[in-house]
Amino acid sequence: MSRRPLSQLTRELTDVCMGRTPADLVIRRGRLVNVHTREVLDNQDVAIAHGRVAMFGEVGHTLGPQTETLDAEGAYLVPGLIDTHLHVESVMVTVTRFAEAVLPRGTTAVFIDNHEMANVFGLPGMQWMLEEGRPLPLKVFLAVPSCVPALPGLEDAGAALGAEEIRTALGWDGVAGLGEMMNMPGVIEGDESVHAELAATLERGRPITGHWSLTGVHDHRLQAYIAAGIDSCHETTSREDALAKLRAGMWVQFREGSTFRDVEALAPVLTEDGVDPRHCLLVTDDVLPETIAFDGHMDRVVRHAIAAGIEPLVAIQMATVNGAEYFGMRHDLGSIAPGRLADILFVEDLADFRPHRVLADGREPGPLPRFEYPEEAHGSIRLARPLAAGDLRVEAAGEAASVRAVGVASGRVTTEHLVVELPVDDGEVRASAEADVAKLASIERHGGPGTIGLGFVQGLGLKRGAVASSIAHDNHNLLVAGMNDEDMLFAVERLVEARGGMVAVADREVLGLVELPIAGLLSDRSVPELAQQTLALGEAYRTLGSRIENPEMIFSFLSLGVIPALRLTNRGLVDAVAFELVSPLAG
Amino acid sequence: MSRRPLSQLTRELTDVCMGRTPADLVIRRGRLVNVHTREVLDNQDVAIAHGRVAMFGEVGHTLGPQTETLDAEGAYLVPGLIDTHLHVESVMVTVTRFAEAVLPRGTTAVFIDNHEMANVFGLPGMQWMLEEGRPLPLKVFLAVPSCVPALPGLEDAGAALGAEEIRTALGWDGVAGLGEMMNMPGVIEGDESVHAELAATLERGRPITGHWSLTGVHDHRLQAYIAAGIDSCHETTSREDALAKLRAGMWVQFREGSTFRDVEALAPVLTEDGVDPRHCLLVTDDVLPETIAFDGHMDRVVRHAIAAGIEPLVAIQMATVNGAEYFGMRHDLGSIAPGRLADILFVEDLADFRPHRVLADGREPGPLPRFEYPEEAHGSIRLARPLAAGDLRVEAAGEAASVRAVGVASGRVTTEHLVVELPVDDGEVRASAEADVAKLASIERHGGPGTIGLGFVQGLGLKRGAVASSIAHDNHNLLVAGMNDEDMLFAVERLVEARGGMVAVADREVLGLVELPIAGLLSDRSVPELAQQTLALGEAYRTLGSRIENPEMIFSFLSLGVIPALRLTNRGLVDAVAFELVSPLAG
Repeated sequence: MSRRPLSQLTRELTDVCMGRTPADLVIRRGRLVNVHTREVLDNQDVAIAHGRVAMFGEVGHTLGPQTETLDAEGAYLVPGLIDTHLHVESVMVTVTRFAEAVLPRGTTAVFIDNHEMANVFGLPGMQWMLEEGRPLPLKVFLAVPSCVPALPGLEDAGAALGAEEIRTALGWDGVAGLGEMMNMPGVIEGDESVHAELAATLERGRPITGHWSLTGVHDHRLQAYIAAGIDSCHETTSREDALAKLRAGMWVQFREGSTFRDVEALAPVLTEDGVDPRHCLLVTDDVLPETIAFDGHMDRVVRHAIAAGIEPLVAIQMATVNGAEYFGMRHDLGSIAPGRLADILFVEDLADFRPHRVLADGREPGPLPRFEYPEEAHGSIRLARPLAAGDLRVEAAGEAASVRAVGVASGRVTTEHLVVELPVDDGEVRASAEADVAKLASIERHGGPGTIGLGFVQGLGLKRGAVASSIAHDNHNLLVAGMNDEDMLFAVERLVEARGGMVAVADREVLGLVELPIAGLLSDRSVPELAQQTLALGEAYRTLGSRIENPEMIFSFLSLGVIPALRLTNRGLVDAVAFELVSPLAG
Repeated sequence: MSRRPLSQLTRELTDVCMGRTPADLVIRRGRLVNVHTREVLDNQDVAIAHGRVAMFGEVGHTLGPQTETLDAEGAYLVPGLIDTHLHVESVMVTVTRFAEAVLPRGTTAVFIDNHEMANVFGLPGMQWMLEEGRPLPLKVFLAVPSCVPALPGLEDAGAALGAEEIRTALGWDGVAGLGEMMNMPGVIEGDESVHAELAATLERGRPITGHWSLTGVHDHRLQAYIAAGIDSCHETTSREDALAKLRAGMWVQFREGSTFRDVEALAPVLTEDGVDPRHCLLVTDDVLPETIAFDGHMDRVVRHAIAAGIEPLVAIQMATVNGAEYFGMRHDLGSIAPGRLADILFVEDLADFRPHRVLADGREPGPLPRFEYPEEAHGSIRLARPLAAGDLRVEAAGEAASVRAVGVASGRVTTEHLVVELPVDDGEVRASAEADVAKLASIERHGGPGTIGLGFVQGLGLKRGAVASSIAHDNHNLLVAGMNDEDMLFAVERLVEARGGMVAVADREVLGLVELPIAGLLSDRSVPELAQQTLALGEAYRTLGSRIENPEMIFSFLSLGVIPALRLTNRGLVDAVAFELVSPLAG
């Protein structure tokens, strides 16, 4: 489909309103949820033409012989839901498959930050996804990944974007702003290239989306970050932090992802502190395919917000008009009003928010066009050489060694910087099921230097076997953890065969495998199919002993050095507070 | 001064926040009015550098040896007030003189629609005022006049702007959107050139400001107007109309001008209907110099809003952040928050809102730079020929005639289309003090065809003499009303001598004169001086018998054919409902 801008349709829409040409569709007898005034207007009709709302209220004069009608039978009519911050790559499917899954859930516009794809394929990868989104009934806007690689000098990703590349991407059609600025030190310490990206975005009049993940830190450092023009944040986990950000002029994106769920903790800002909700948004950030398949997408977040005590009409504003206003798109998105795109949900019960019918561009989405990723996209696992037995050795003398371990736990994106005692056998530090410590390796896979970082991880719960993933935020090298080197190497080999994915193995047997052949990140399977695979993988993790929630997601974050405290990249263990490499041996 | 954009200051501001370079100014011990959260934060300090807020809260570390400090002594700190719709020409002074008068009242940003100047001098005139505003501490943005002339084919103004000229102006630095779209029929009937202007504005991603003055008409016609992308309106006089506009996605500008005051009538939308106030704004539209001199500017409107029952913090949002968000300028305007321009008011009492100190760009405004209008600007009264005694004759046979008269009354911008009986003497229709009917003439003065429109006006209250004005919305021809032709001609001659202005005369004596030599619209005198002159002119009107409020302002609107019901232009009487010329004789 080609979506014409309002600037080309002003006469056509007035023609419909004035009865000179008929509407394409008239919805009858809806209860219109008016997000401008925060009211419900009973018994409203809506006239739609050219994929946009022409008018609502009394629309009988817009009916023509060809006009379709749709009886809402008293259902609420709600504007399509907008997710202002998410990564499609977290769902591990293509944009098309994502759209197919979330449109029936009521999500009709998304602002994607495809920084996983950008870390693998740079500008071309970003463009593939934007291009894929263009013909879809789901509106797909891009927030240009701002931190590729996330940790310059401390990891090797598949691409590096500087201010020049950012400037190029900001000029593409469909680009809405700059993606989450994770380089907090770079911003507040005045790094030139970081500020060049900020300047390029502000010059275009676009918002800079934030990522201020320092919980409890809302002093002059937060304000320095905001003074640089960054005015939204989805990394807010406490009411106090949310208040501080809102007061300093940020738009706070209440996140309800699969693993990181902040809505309940943040709701009191509205329900108790009673602040103006206009700058509060609902977002998903990262959701797993099973969450979409079984619970939903933005509809689920709206339900959680309402369950947390937020008034239904406010929760709906947070998922509609507020996002449209944040990105300066009020002419197109966010409300059911004259001129806006006719993205309309039919809902029986506002509190138990479950759309039973969804219109996008004024009609029910049919089969989506197929998008073919180029062959190059399927060849992203490029190891410098086949791995050998000794590649994963961590050597130490004596019978035991103090080593650094990345400490993980359920429901937490931060890690701990632990020092643990491990047995040394035959001059090599061994994983220990007793201590719940596995060996961890990050293997460069982008056709680069082929370096391997080594360390340990505590808390995964593995008793035996190994797990591996080509999703490893944000460098997306091959990350592997295991209780012995043989299983670790076997896991890596299976991922190479699959052209990317996630795997759990034990004793040279594959217990669970999710194939992600596009960039080592995405599958072209449907979301429910992916959900079955990831659930089976989770089951395999549990078979190996893991008891944490969404272990494969927690695992994929072990490389994410922008979030404290200890991480592993292909260059080695990263102290993610001091931003320096440290040795696996703590001695 | 040169105001650097935030894009050039992100590093400098983070330097200040982080204590690497000192602040220019620190305000101590303020009660910060936070318009993001709608809260008051007690005991806050604010650090300012490069004319912008670096941060607030604890700012001791930003103090350096050169840092000035300012003790707020517990005063409220309020963001500078924003007027999103006004005509500087209504104050009848230059932009500099306007700034000098309104800055101390707390107005720090204005979105001017200089369509009076545009009607006299077209694009060059619009540029003069924009250029004049650029170096001022008052932020002066332009909403490009959209309807010049207001009534194509029914009047002759000094310029005509088509879509091409609009497109040119939209590219100027400091242009914020399209000015009030008064051509309601053109919009809803699909006029091509009108829609070309709308499209040009939408293509640039700018808002189109509206003017929907059809009171009580909020059906499909209003929605057609909105579907064309027009999303604000300051012509709203009833609660029902305000609700209808807000619901359809418009931002409603509650107007509190000198003559047209709608705040009290509209306040119940907030105080009783309880709608979300985010899309409600406060504006002045048209204020007289005496209003500013004696009552204030946007501070006065805020006081009126609070007096009408609107919560003080909501009223302040309506005059600050809401306007910044309407025009997509939240990075620069509307709040006291990191990165924003340091336009800060000190106020003792929020309810009796009277700023006692005003900072603009982080300092108290000093003497303003002088701006010299070009010589051409002073030669705008260009009559085709000197007028002669017979030019104003309205001929009729018999002893009496039925004539059309423009009916006026206090506090009403609409007029009535009256038919009255007047005496005929010597073949000529005469004014009648008894019937309160004066003769009315509009004389083309832009060096054009020199045509003269003739008619009558009922309700001005003149018993003798004549009044004249080169301010005559929107064509700004010479408008003159009087009880006899001799006084009318004398009044016109005085205005020609003065190079424009407003005058009241009787028996070849000038009773009151306001000289407006720039474009026949503006004076370079101070606002208090102008106020004295206009008060004296009002006194002169009263001497002549007039009892209506602000008679010179009511008078200047008698040419405004875009508002019902009957008007007079240089082409003649205009039926401002049917949009056609009608004869002064009703026979």
